[in-house]
Amino acid sequence: MATYLITGASRGLGASIVSLLASQPESEVATIFAAARGNNSAQLKEFTEKYPGRVKFVQLDVGDDKSVEEAARSVEQELNGKGLDVLINNAGVMPWIQGGIEKMDDLSETFDTNVTGVHRVTRQFLPLLRKGQQKKVVNISSSVGSIAMAPQFQHLSTPSYKVAKAALNALTVDYALTFAKEGFTFIAVSPGWLQTDLGGSAADLPVEVGAKEVIRITNEASKDDTGKFLDIRVPGWNSKGGPNTYNGSEIPW
Amino acid sequence: MATYLITGASRGLGASIVSLLASQPESEVATIFAAARGNNSAQLKEFTEKYPGRVKFVQLDVGDDKSVEEAARSVEQELNGKGLDVLINNAGVMPWIQGGIEKMDDLSETFDTNVTGVHRVTRQFLPLLRKGQQKKVVNISSSVGSIAMAPQFQHLSTPSYKVAKAALNALTVDYALTFAKEGFTFIAVSPGWLQTDLGGSAADLPVEVGAKEVIRITNEASKDDTGKFLDIRVPGWNSKGGPNTYNGSEIPW
Repeated sequence: MATYLITGASRGLGASIVSLLASQPESEVATIFAAARGNNSAQLKEFTEKYPGRVKFVQLDVGDDKSVEEAARSVEQELNGKGLDVLINNAGVMPWIQGGIEKMDDLSETFDTNVTGVHRVTRQFLPLLRKGQQKKVVNISSSVGSIAMAPQFQHLSTPSYKVAKAALNALTVDYALTFAKEGFTFIAVSPGWLQTDLGGSAADLPVEVGAKEVIRITNEASKDDTGKFLDIRVPGWNSKGGPNTYNGSEIPW
Repeated sequence: MATYLITGASRGLGASIVSLLASQPESEVATIFAAARGNNSAQLKEFTEKYPGRVKFVQLDVGDDKSVEEAARSVEQELNGKGLDVLINNAGVMPWIQGGIEKMDDLSETFDTNVTGVHRVTRQFLPLLRKGQQKKVVNISSSVGSIAMAPQFQHLSTPSYKVAKAALNALTVDYALTFAKEGFTFIAVSPGWLQTDLGGSAADLPVEVGAKEVIRITNEASKDDTGKFLDIRVPGWNSKGGPNTYNGSEIPW
Protein backbone atom coordinates (compact mmCIF):
# COMPACT_ATOMS: atom_id res chain seq x y z
CA MET A 1 0.00 0.00 0.00
CA ALA A 2 2.85 2.35 -0.80
CA THR A 3 2.42 5.88 -2.14
CA TYR A 4 4.72 7.21 -4.86
CA LEU A 5 5.53 10.55 -6.41
CA ILE A 6 7.31 10.58 -9.77
CA THR A 7 8.52 13.83 -11.36
CA GLY A 8 8.80 14.23 -15.12
CA ALA A 9 5.88 11.81 -15.43
CA SER A 10 4.36 13.15 -18.63
CA ARG A 11 6.52 11.05 -20.95
CA GLY A 12 9.52 8.79 -21.36
CA LEU A 13 10.88 6.97 -18.34
CA GLY A 14 8.62 8.84 -15.89
CA ALA A 15 5.42 7.90 -17.74
CA SER A 16 6.59 4.30 -18.06
CA ILE A 17 7.27 4.07 -14.31
CA VAL A 18 3.78 5.44 -13.59
CA SER A 19 2.23 2.92 -15.98
CA LEU A 20 4.06 -0.07 -14.50
CA LEU A 21 3.31 0.99 -10.92
CA ALA A 22 -0.38 1.46 -11.77
CA SER A 23 -0.55 -2.10 -13.14
CA GLN A 24 0.58 -3.56 -9.82
CA PRO A 25 -1.95 -4.78 -7.23
CA GLU A 26 -3.36 -2.20 -4.82
CA SER A 27 -1.96 -4.27 -1.97
CA GLU A 28 1.48 -3.13 -3.13
CA VAL A 29 0.93 0.24 -4.77
CA ALA A 30 -1.72 2.62 -3.47
CA THR A 31 -1.62 6.15 -4.88
CA ILE A 32 0.75 7.29 -7.62
CA PHE A 33 1.31 11.01 -7.87
CA ALA A 34 2.36 11.71 -11.44
CA ALA A 35 4.03 15.11 -11.40
CA ALA A 36 4.67 17.15 -14.52
CA ARG A 37 4.84 20.76 -15.62
CA GLY A 38 1.67 20.59 -17.69
CA ASN A 39 -1.32 18.24 -17.87
CA ASN A 40 -1.46 18.10 -21.66
CA SER A 41 0.25 14.73 -21.92
CA ALA A 42 -1.86 12.12 -23.70
CA GLN A 43 -0.11 9.36 -21.77
CA LEU A 44 -0.82 10.95 -18.39
CA LYS A 45 -4.45 11.56 -19.37
CA GLU A 46 -4.78 7.90 -20.31
CA PHE A 47 -3.39 6.78 -16.92
CA THR A 48 -5.55 9.09 -14.83
CA GLU A 49 -8.64 7.92 -16.75
CA LYS A 50 -7.69 4.23 -16.66
CA TYR A 51 -6.84 4.28 -12.94
CA PRO A 52 -9.17 6.93 -11.49
CA GLY A 53 -8.27 7.94 -7.95
CA ARG A 54 -5.12 5.86 -8.13
CA VAL A 55 -2.97 7.81 -10.58
CA LYS A 56 -3.21 11.49 -9.70
CA PHE A 57 -1.77 14.31 -11.75
CA VAL A 58 0.23 16.90 -9.82
CA GLN A 59 1.23 20.18 -11.44
CA LEU A 60 4.93 20.62 -10.63
CA ASP A 61 7.72 22.60 -12.31
CA VAL A 62 11.03 21.53 -10.73
CA GLY A 63 12.56 24.84 -11.79
CA ASP A 64 10.13 26.94 -9.77
CA ASP A 65 10.19 27.07 -5.94
CA LYS A 66 6.57 28.26 -5.73
CA SER A 67 5.31 25.49 -8.00
CA VAL A 68 7.11 22.86 -5.92
CA GLU A 69 5.68 24.30 -2.69
CA GLU A 70 2.15 24.24 -4.12
CA ALA A 71 2.62 20.68 -5.37
CA ALA A 72 3.71 19.56 -1.90
CA ARG A 73 0.66 21.22 -0.35
CA SER A 74 -1.69 19.58 -2.85
CA VAL A 75 -0.15 16.11 -2.29
CA GLU A 76 -0.36 16.63 1.48
CA GLN A 77 -4.09 17.31 1.17
CA GLU A 78 -4.61 14.24 -1.00
CA LEU A 79 -2.71 12.05 1.45
CA ASN A 80 -4.97 13.33 4.23
CA GLY A 81 -2.58 12.79 7.13
CA LYS A 82 -0.70 9.87 5.66
CA GLY A 83 2.90 10.04 4.46
CA LEU A 84 4.57 9.72 1.08
CA ASP A 85 6.58 6.49 0.86
CA VAL A 86 8.68 6.85 -2.27
CA LEU A 87 9.87 9.88 -4.22
CA ILE A 88 11.37 9.26 -7.66
CA ASN A 89 13.19 12.36 -8.93
CA ASN A 90 13.07 11.63 -12.64
CA ALA A 91 12.56 15.06 -14.27
CA GLY A 92 15.59 16.21 -16.22
CA VAL A 93 16.97 17.48 -19.49
CA MET A 94 19.83 16.34 -21.72
CA PRO A 95 20.84 19.08 -24.17
CA TRP A 96 23.14 18.17 -27.05
CA ILE A 97 25.87 20.70 -27.74
CA GLN A 98 27.27 20.93 -31.26
CA GLY A 99 31.01 21.42 -30.91
CA GLY A 100 31.34 20.04 -27.40
CA ILE A 101 32.28 21.72 -24.14
CA GLU A 102 33.88 24.76 -25.77
CA LYS A 103 30.46 25.71 -27.16
CA MET A 104 28.50 24.80 -24.02
CA ASP A 105 26.26 27.70 -23.00
CA ASP A 106 23.59 25.89 -20.98
CA LEU A 107 25.53 24.73 -17.93
CA SER A 108 23.69 26.79 -15.31
CA GLU A 109 20.26 26.03 -16.81
CA THR A 110 20.90 22.29 -17.02
CA PHE A 111 22.23 22.30 -13.46
CA ASP A 112 19.17 24.21 -12.27
CA THR A 113 16.77 21.60 -13.70
CA ASN A 114 18.76 18.41 -13.09
CA VAL A 115 20.31 19.17 -9.70
CA THR A 116 18.72 22.18 -7.99
CA GLY A 117 15.36 20.86 -9.26
CA VAL A 118 15.92 17.58 -7.41
CA HIS A 119 16.92 19.52 -4.29
CA ARG A 120 13.81 21.74 -4.49
CA VAL A 121 11.49 18.75 -4.75
CA THR A 122 13.26 16.60 -2.15
CA ARG A 123 13.39 19.39 0.39
CA GLN A 124 9.73 20.31 -0.01
CA PHE A 125 8.54 16.72 0.24
CA LEU A 126 10.75 15.82 3.23
CA PRO A 127 7.95 16.41 5.79
CA LEU A 128 5.66 14.00 3.89
CA LEU A 129 8.49 11.48 3.36
CA ARG A 130 9.26 11.57 7.11
CA LYS A 131 5.69 10.43 7.73
CA GLY A 132 6.05 7.66 5.12
CA GLN A 133 6.74 3.99 5.84
CA GLN A 134 9.57 3.52 3.32
CA LYS A 135 11.39 6.85 3.32
CA LYS A 136 12.94 6.13 -0.09
CA VAL A 137 14.22 8.77 -2.50
CA VAL A 138 15.42 7.55 -5.91
CA ASN A 139 17.32 10.06 -8.01
CA ILE A 140 17.46 9.19 -11.69
CA SER A 141 21.10 9.71 -12.59
CA SER A 142 23.17 8.27 -15.45
CA SER A 143 26.34 6.30 -15.96
CA VAL A 144 27.26 9.23 -18.22
CA GLY A 145 27.63 11.23 -14.98
CA SER A 146 30.32 8.85 -13.72
CA ILE A 147 33.56 10.86 -13.77
CA ALA A 148 35.54 7.60 -13.68
CA MET A 149 33.76 6.41 -16.83
CA ALA A 150 34.12 9.73 -18.69
CA PRO A 151 36.64 8.39 -21.26
CA GLN A 152 34.10 5.77 -22.30
CA PHE A 153 31.41 8.39 -22.92
CA GLN A 154 33.64 10.95 -24.60
CA HIS A 155 31.74 10.52 -27.88
CA LEU A 156 28.52 11.85 -26.32
CA SER A 157 28.39 15.61 -26.79
CA THR A 158 26.23 16.33 -23.75
CA PRO A 159 28.73 18.14 -21.49
CA SER A 160 26.26 19.98 -19.25
CA TYR A 161 24.32 16.74 -18.67
CA LYS A 162 27.51 14.91 -17.65
CA VAL A 163 28.56 17.64 -15.21
CA ALA A 164 25.03 17.92 -13.77
CA LYS A 165 24.67 14.16 -13.22
CA ALA A 166 28.03 14.05 -11.41
CA ALA A 167 26.72 16.88 -9.22
CA LEU A 168 23.42 15.03 -8.69
CA ASN A 169 25.39 12.03 -7.45
CA ALA A 170 27.19 14.25 -4.92
CA LEU A 171 23.84 15.72 -3.85
CA THR A 172 22.39 12.23 -3.41
CA VAL A 173 25.28 11.18 -1.18
CA ASP A 174 25.02 14.31 0.98
CA TYR A 175 21.29 13.65 1.49
CA ALA A 176 22.01 9.96 2.18
CA LEU A 177 24.58 10.75 4.86
CA THR A 178 22.44 13.48 6.43
CA PHE A 179 19.23 11.44 6.67
CA ALA A 180 20.63 7.96 7.41
CA LYS A 181 19.90 8.44 11.11
CA GLU A 182 16.22 9.08 10.29
CA GLY A 183 15.97 5.78 8.42
CA PHE A 184 15.95 7.23 4.89
CA THR A 185 17.29 5.47 1.79
CA PHE A 186 18.64 7.82 -0.86
CA ILE A 187 20.00 6.20 -4.03
CA ALA A 188 21.14 7.34 -7.46
CA VAL A 189 20.07 4.99 -10.24
CA SER A 190 21.28 4.85 -13.83
CA PRO A 191 18.19 3.63 -15.70
CA GLY A 192 20.10 2.62 -18.82
CA TRP A 193 20.23 4.25 -22.21
CA LEU A 194 16.55 4.14 -23.11
CA GLN A 195 14.56 4.61 -26.30
CA THR A 196 12.77 7.82 -25.28
CA ASP A 197 12.64 11.37 -26.64
CA LEU A 198 15.66 12.05 -24.43
CA GLY A 199 17.62 8.92 -25.29
CA GLY A 200 16.74 8.74 -28.99
CA SER A 201 15.73 5.76 -31.09
CA ALA A 202 19.26 4.31 -31.34
CA ALA A 203 19.34 3.72 -27.59
CA ASP A 204 20.09 0.35 -26.01
CA LEU A 205 16.77 -0.58 -24.44
CA PRO A 206 13.00 -0.12 -24.64
CA VAL A 207 11.85 2.33 -21.99
CA GLU A 208 9.83 -0.36 -20.20
CA VAL A 209 13.00 -2.32 -19.44
CA GLY A 210 14.49 0.69 -17.68
CA ALA A 211 11.26 1.49 -15.86
CA LYS A 212 10.89 -2.09 -14.61
CA GLU A 213 14.47 -2.09 -13.37
CA VAL A 214 14.07 1.27 -11.60
CA ILE A 215 11.02 -0.13 -9.78
CA ARG A 216 12.84 -3.37 -8.90
CA ILE A 217 15.86 -1.46 -7.57
CA THR A 218 13.54 0.88 -5.62
CA ASN A 219 11.72 -2.07 -4.06
CA GLU A 220 14.87 -3.99 -3.20
CA ALA A 221 16.85 -1.01 -1.85
CA SER A 222 17.22 -1.04 1.91
CA LYS A 223 18.78 1.41 4.34
CA ASP A 224 22.09 -0.42 3.83
CA ASP A 225 22.06 0.77 0.23
CA THR A 226 21.73 4.46 1.01
CA GLY A 227 24.23 6.61 -0.85
CA LYS A 228 24.83 4.05 -3.60
CA PHE A 229 24.94 4.69 -7.37
CA LEU A 230 23.28 1.65 -8.90
CA ASP A 231 23.10 0.25 -12.40
CA ILE A 232 20.18 -1.72 -13.83
CA ARG A 233 20.50 -5.44 -14.55
CA VAL A 234 20.02 -6.79 -18.07
CA PRO A 235 21.38 -10.36 -18.21
CA GLY A 236 23.84 -10.95 -21.05
CA TRP A 237 24.29 -7.30 -21.94
CA ASN A 238 27.90 -7.09 -20.75
CA SER A 239 28.97 -9.43 -23.56
CA LYS A 240 28.21 -6.62 -26.05
CA GLY A 241 31.36 -4.74 -25.05
CA GLY A 242 29.88 -1.23 -24.81
CA PRO A 243 30.47 1.18 -21.91
CA ASN A 244 27.21 0.17 -20.24
CA THR A 245 27.31 -3.38 -18.88
CA TYR A 246 23.91 -3.31 -17.09
CA ASN A 247 25.17 -5.86 -14.62
CA GLY A 248 23.27 -4.48 -11.62
CA SER A 249 26.36 -3.42 -9.72
CA GLU A 250 27.45 -0.12 -8.26
CA ILE A 251 28.76 2.41 -10.76
CA PRO A 252 32.05 4.16 -9.87
CA TRP A 253 31.80 7.88 -9.11
CA MET B 1 59.39 32.86 -19.27
CA ALA B 2 55.90 31.54 -18.67
CA THR B 3 52.81 33.73 -18.39
CA TYR B 4 50.12 32.99 -15.80
CA LEU B 5 46.58 34.09 -15.09
CA ILE B 6 45.17 33.45 -11.62
CA THR B 7 41.52 34.18 -10.78
CA GLY B 8 40.41 35.09 -7.27
CA ALA B 9 43.84 36.71 -6.81
CA SER B 10 42.83 39.44 -4.37
CA ARG B 11 43.30 37.31 -1.24
CA GLY B 12 43.78 33.88 0.23
CA LEU B 13 45.24 31.14 -1.94
CA GLY B 14 45.06 33.23 -5.14
CA ALA B 15 47.08 36.10 -3.64
CA SER B 16 49.59 33.68 -2.19
CA ILE B 17 50.09 31.99 -5.57
CA VAL B 18 50.67 35.40 -7.19
CA SER B 19 53.17 36.34 -4.49
CA LEU B 20 55.16 33.12 -4.81
CA LEU B 21 55.19 33.26 -8.60
CA ALA B 22 56.36 36.87 -8.53
CA SER B 23 59.30 35.93 -6.31
CA GLN B 24 60.60 33.45 -8.89
CA PRO B 25 63.27 34.45 -11.43
CA GLU B 26 62.07 36.11 -14.63
CA SER B 27 63.68 33.28 -16.56
CA GLU B 28 60.90 31.06 -15.22
CA VAL B 29 57.97 33.37 -14.64
CA ALA B 30 57.33 36.32 -16.94
CA THR B 31 53.99 38.08 -16.52
CA ILE B 32 51.45 37.22 -13.84
CA PHE B 33 47.91 38.35 -14.51
CA ALA B 34 46.22 38.68 -11.13
CA ALA B 35 42.50 38.61 -11.81
CA ALA B 36 39.91 39.74 -9.29
CA ARG B 37 36.51 41.38 -9.20
CA GLY B 38 37.77 44.65 -7.72
CA ASN B 39 41.17 46.31 -7.37
CA ASN B 40 40.72 47.36 -3.75
CA SER B 41 42.82 44.54 -2.31
CA ALA B 42 45.79 45.79 -0.28
CA GLN B 43 47.70 42.60 -1.10
CA LEU B 44 47.21 42.98 -4.84
CA LYS B 45 48.19 46.65 -4.67
CA GLU B 46 51.38 45.67 -2.85
CA PHE B 47 52.26 43.09 -5.54
CA THR B 48 51.62 45.37 -8.51
CA GLU B 49 53.75 48.08 -6.87
CA LYS B 50 56.53 45.71 -5.81
CA TYR B 51 56.70 43.99 -9.21
CA PRO B 52 55.74 46.74 -11.68
CA GLY B 53 55.01 45.44 -15.18
CA ARG B 54 55.34 41.87 -13.92
CA VAL B 55 52.23 41.45 -11.77
CA LYS B 56 49.28 42.95 -13.62
CA PHE B 57 45.83 43.43 -12.20
CA VAL B 58 42.97 42.23 -14.41
CA GLN B 59 39.38 43.17 -13.58
CA LEU B 60 37.42 39.93 -13.88
CA ASP B 61 34.13 38.79 -12.36
CA VAL B 62 33.78 35.05 -13.04
CA GLY B 63 29.99 35.37 -12.68
CA ASP B 64 29.64 37.82 -15.57
CA ASP B 65 30.15 36.79 -19.21
CA LYS B 66 30.83 40.38 -20.32
CA SER B 67 33.45 40.94 -17.63
CA VAL B 68 35.24 37.71 -18.60
CA GLU B 69 35.18 38.70 -22.29
CA GLU B 70 36.64 42.11 -21.50
CA ALA B 71 39.31 40.56 -19.28
CA ALA B 72 40.36 38.22 -22.08
CA ARG B 73 40.58 41.15 -24.50
CA SER B 74 42.70 43.17 -22.08
CA VAL B 75 45.08 40.25 -21.43
CA GLU B 76 45.35 39.64 -25.18
CA GLN B 77 46.44 43.25 -25.67
CA GLU B 78 49.00 43.02 -22.87
CA LEU B 79 50.42 39.79 -24.31
CA ASN B 80 50.82 41.55 -27.64
CA GLY B 81 50.67 38.48 -29.88
CA LYS B 82 52.08 35.99 -27.38
CA GLY B 83 50.06 33.27 -25.71
CA LEU B 84 49.01 32.59 -22.13
CA ASP B 85 50.83 29.56 -20.74
CA VAL B 86 49.01 28.71 -17.53
CA LEU B 87 45.50 29.46 -16.28
CA ILE B 88 44.77 28.81 -12.61
CA ASN B 89 41.03 28.86 -11.94
CA ASN B 90 41.10 29.65 -8.24
CA ALA B 91 38.09 31.95 -7.70
CA GLY B 92 35.36 30.32 -5.68
CA VAL B 93 33.07 30.54 -2.68
CA MET B 94 32.37 28.16 0.20
CA PRO B 95 29.11 29.09 1.97
CA TRP B 96 28.36 27.48 5.31
CA ILE B 97 24.77 26.35 5.73
CA GLN B 98 23.35 26.18 9.25
CA GLY B 99 21.21 23.05 9.40
CA GLY B 100 22.86 21.25 6.49
CA ILE B 101 21.49 20.25 3.12
CA GLU B 102 17.83 20.55 4.11
CA LYS B 103 18.37 24.30 4.60
CA MET B 104 20.59 24.78 1.54
CA ASP B 105 19.27 27.66 -0.57
CA ASP B 106 22.43 28.69 -2.43
CA LEU B 107 23.04 25.70 -4.69
CA SER B 108 22.54 27.45 -8.04
CA GLU B 109 24.55 30.53 -6.96
CA THR B 110 27.47 28.46 -5.66
CA PHE B 111 27.42 26.37 -8.82
CA ASP B 112 27.38 29.49 -10.97
CA THR B 113 30.53 30.87 -9.31
CA ASN B 114 32.49 27.66 -8.70
CA VAL B 115 31.66 25.72 -11.87
CA THR B 116 30.07 27.91 -14.57
CA GLY B 117 32.58 30.60 -13.55
CA VAL B 118 35.46 28.26 -14.33
CA HIS B 119 33.84 27.37 -17.65
CA ARG B 120 33.32 31.05 -18.56
CA VAL B 121 36.97 31.89 -17.89
CA THR B 122 38.44 28.77 -19.50
CA ARG B 123 36.36 29.13 -22.64
CA GLN B 124 37.20 32.81 -23.11
CA PHE B 125 40.93 32.27 -22.57
CA LEU B 126 41.18 29.19 -24.82
CA PRO B 127 42.39 31.19 -27.86
CA LEU B 128 45.24 32.67 -25.78
CA LEU B 129 46.01 29.31 -24.15
CA ARG B 130 46.19 27.67 -27.58
CA LYS B 131 48.95 30.13 -28.46
CA GLY B 132 50.77 29.39 -25.18
CA GLN B 133 53.76 27.06 -24.77
CA GLN B 134 52.44 25.08 -21.81
CA LYS B 135 48.69 24.87 -22.38
CA LYS B 136 48.00 24.13 -18.71
CA VAL B 137 44.72 24.75 -16.92
CA VAL B 138 44.66 24.11 -13.18
CA ASN B 139 41.24 24.07 -11.53
CA ILE B 140 41.34 24.57 -7.77
CA SER B 141 39.04 21.86 -6.47
CA SER B 142 38.85 20.24 -3.03
CA SER B 143 39.00 16.79 -1.50
CA VAL B 144 35.65 17.82 0.00
CA GLY B 145 34.29 17.47 -3.55
CA SER B 146 35.30 13.80 -3.67
CA ILE B 147 32.03 11.83 -3.62
CA ALA B 148 33.96 8.74 -2.53
CA MET B 149 35.31 10.62 0.50
CA ALA B 150 31.95 12.20 1.44
CA PRO B 151 31.51 10.13 4.63
CA GLN B 152 34.81 11.52 5.92
CA PHE B 153 33.68 15.11 5.36
CA GLN B 154 30.14 14.70 6.66
CA HIS B 155 30.86 17.04 9.58
CA LEU B 156 31.46 19.99 7.20
CA SER B 157 28.17 21.79 6.62
CA THR B 158 29.05 23.15 3.19
CA PRO B 159 26.70 21.12 0.97
CA SER B 160 26.61 23.45 -2.05
CA TYR B 161 30.42 23.63 -2.05
CA LYS B 162 30.70 19.83 -2.01
CA VAL B 163 28.23 19.40 -4.88
CA ALA B 164 29.87 22.19 -6.90
CA LYS B 165 33.40 20.81 -6.46
CA ALA B 166 32.23 17.35 -7.63
CA ALA B 167 30.74 19.08 -10.67
CA LEU B 168 33.98 21.03 -11.21
CA ASN B 169 35.87 17.74 -11.27
CA ALA B 170 33.51 16.43 -13.97
CA LEU B 171 33.97 19.66 -15.94
CA THR B 172 37.76 19.35 -15.64
CA VAL B 173 37.70 15.82 -17.02
CA ASP B 174 35.45 16.76 -19.94
CA TYR B 175 37.85 19.59 -20.86
CA ALA B 176 40.83 17.25 -20.41
CA LEU B 177 39.39 14.63 -22.76
CA THR B 178 38.27 17.21 -25.32
CA PHE B 179 41.59 19.07 -25.53
CA ALA B 180 44.07 16.22 -25.07
CA LYS B 181 44.62 16.05 -28.83
CA GLU B 182 45.64 19.74 -28.83
CA GLY B 183 48.31 19.09 -26.20
CA PHE B 184 46.48 20.64 -23.24
CA THR B 185 46.88 19.58 -19.62
CA PHE B 186 43.75 20.08 -17.50
CA ILE B 187 44.02 19.07 -13.84
CA ALA B 188 41.93 19.48 -10.70
CA VAL B 189 44.01 20.17 -7.61
CA SER B 190 42.98 20.01 -3.96
CA PRO B 191 45.17 22.69 -2.36
CA GLY B 192 44.64 21.43 1.19
CA TRP B 193 42.60 22.90 3.99
CA LEU B 194 44.26 26.30 4.28
CA GLN B 195 44.23 29.08 6.86
CA THR B 196 42.46 31.69 4.74
CA ASP B 197 39.20 33.64 5.05
CA LEU B 198 37.58 30.70 3.23
CA GLY B 199 39.24 27.92 5.23
CA GLY B 200 39.19 29.59 8.64
CA SER B 201 41.90 29.80 11.28
CA ALA B 202 41.46 26.21 12.48
CA ALA B 203 42.57 24.89 9.08
CA ASP B 204 45.42 22.42 8.61
CA LEU B 205 48.05 24.48 6.83
CA PRO B 206 49.36 28.02 6.29
CA VAL B 207 48.20 29.34 2.93
CA GLU B 208 51.79 29.49 1.62
CA VAL B 209 52.13 25.73 1.94
CA GLY B 210 49.09 25.20 -0.30
CA ALA B 211 50.23 27.87 -2.77
CA LYS B 212 53.70 26.36 -3.04
CA GLU B 213 52.24 22.93 -3.65
CA VAL B 214 49.80 24.19 -6.29
CA ILE B 215 52.75 25.77 -8.13
CA ARG B 216 54.85 22.60 -7.81
CA ILE B 217 52.01 20.43 -9.10
CA THR B 218 51.38 22.90 -11.95
CA ASN B 219 55.05 22.83 -12.95
CA GLU B 220 55.38 19.06 -12.74
CA ALA B 221 52.10 18.22 -14.49
CA SER B 222 52.55 16.90 -17.99
CA LYS B 223 50.11 15.91 -20.71
CA ASP B 224 50.07 12.42 -19.19
CA ASP B 225 48.46 13.89 -16.08
CA THR B 226 45.54 15.50 -17.88
CA GLY B 227 42.20 14.72 -16.28
CA LYS B 228 43.69 13.88 -12.88
CA PHE B 229 42.46 15.03 -9.47
CA LEU B 230 45.64 15.63 -7.45
CA ASP B 231 46.35 16.13 -3.79
CA ILE B 232 49.18 18.24 -2.37
CA ARG B 233 52.14 16.58 -0.64
CA VAL B 234 52.97 17.38 2.98
CA PRO B 235 55.41 14.75 4.28
CA GLY B 236 54.31 13.12 7.52
CA TRP B 237 50.78 14.51 7.47
CA ASN B 238 49.11 11.15 6.86
CA SER B 239 50.17 9.97 10.33
CA LYS B 240 47.68 12.47 11.83
CA GLY B 241 44.74 10.24 10.87
CA GLY B 242 42.41 12.93 9.48
CA PRO B 243 40.52 12.66 6.18
CA ASN B 244 43.22 14.62 4.33
CA THR B 245 46.46 12.68 4.00
CA TYR B 246 48.28 15.19 1.74
CA ASN B 247 50.33 12.38 0.26
CA GLY B 248 50.51 13.82 -3.24
CA SER B 249 48.46 11.07 -4.84
CA GLU B 250 45.32 11.10 -6.94
CA ILE B 251 42.10 11.67 -5.00
CA PRO B 252 39.21 9.31 -5.79
CA TRP B 253 36.21 10.89 -7.54
